Amino acid sequence: MNPNRIESAQRASGGLVFAVSFSLPEWLRQESSRRTAALSRIEERMDFVINLARMNIQNKTGGPFAAAVFTIPDGKLISAGINLVTSANASILHAEMVALTLAQNSLGSWDLSAPEMPACELVASSEPCAMCFGALPWSGIKRLVCGARREDAAHAGFDEGEKPADWTGALVRRGIEVVRDVCRVEAAGAIDSYARSGGVIYNARRAAR
Amino acid sequence: MNPNRIESAQRASGGLVFAVSFSLPEWLRQESSRRTAALSRIEERMDFVINLARMNIQNKTGGPFAAAVFTIPDGKLISAGINLVTSANASILHAEMVALTLAQNSLGSWDLSAPEMPACELVASSEPCAMCFGALPWSGIKRLVCGARREDAAHAGFDEGEKPADWTGALVRRGIEVVRDVCRVEAAGAIDSYARSGGVIYNARRAAR
Repeated sequence: MNPNRIESAQRASGGLVFAVSFSLPEWLRQESSRRTAALSRIEERMDFVINLARMNIQNKTGGPFAAAVFTIPDGKLISAGINLVTSANASILHAEMVALTLAQNSLGSWDLSAPEMPACELVASSEPCAMCFGALPWSGIKRLVCGARREDAAHAGFDEGEKPADWTGALVRRGIEVVRDVCRVEAAGAIDSYARSGGVIYNARRAAR
Repeated sequence: MNPNRIESAQRASGGLVFAVSFSLPEWLRQESSRRTAALSRIEERMDFVINLARMNIQNKTGGPFAAAVFTIPDGKLISAGINLVTSANASILHAEMVALTLAQNSLGSWDLSAPEMPACELVASSEPCAMCFGALPWSGIKRLVCGARREDAAHAGFDEGEKPADWTGALVRRGIEVVRDVCRVEAAGAIDSYARSGGVIYNARRAAR
């Protein structure tokens, strides 16, 4: 360990840190604000999300993953998220966690299935990692829609962690519908193009163990 | 669904939400700032954390759970967290997630095992839920120290979600040491006293399914 590093880091932040904030990049704010028309089909919703993943690469604001929360019946966008791990110095801020938190803040409830809340879904460009999987039941979403599969992300070197063997069954038993492989080819294509362009493979160090 | 509820909530927040912040209650800032002496034994570190869980109940700022990040070799406190789910309207903000994020912000790195970082551990008053389990490998901590067991929390009605059957083995294989049952009786006692006092059982609705 290097005590000087801790002390200089803590001195720079004025000692212990008691508050954290994070925010979306400007391009994503604009892109989300523009999405005012409802998207009636889940493929359209996924297409919107995959486009965010591609824009995230183009804007050099992160990796090839994005997520958004929509109301299920009418496809109204509630929130959109990308991975903010490096920009916010917070390993918990995967795209899914960002989208869920922004949705809860937007609707004023930590539980998206509280009374009077609209039925909400998380549309994610890739299958959830172990952390994001575990976060779903606490969020109150009623449906998870995924694009790429674990193996598509693993192929590029991304590590998804250890989920229970029957992770989709675990969600279904908690009342969360799971829809997989929506625009999978396009979603996997975004990951591939990122990897081929030499983008940083998030958590590659751990995956290589 | 109730579109009026969405629109009024979004109108109140000025439309879509693009940024989130959260902060610790004042009593926890004071309690953490006071903890300047290193705690050489893990039992002392756990005792500090269980005391935060008890103070969280007394101050009516949340449930009977707390967590803190310490440097492993010398027991220096890097961050402390409690569950901020209801106060921040964010279901991801379990005590463990708060402590990890504050530690990463304090040290200026999303990866606590990056070069020059001190070896860090997460000391948690209870076994991690499925989400917090999944978050550990991405955080860079080298050791997890737990007080209460899953069954102690379940006994009071708390739901921990679905972890892989061999969740401790999964962490060990990723280089994260796991130490369980540290001051388990005291940690379980804090949960029991909260439940007996009629405290809100977080996620009880889902646990009852």
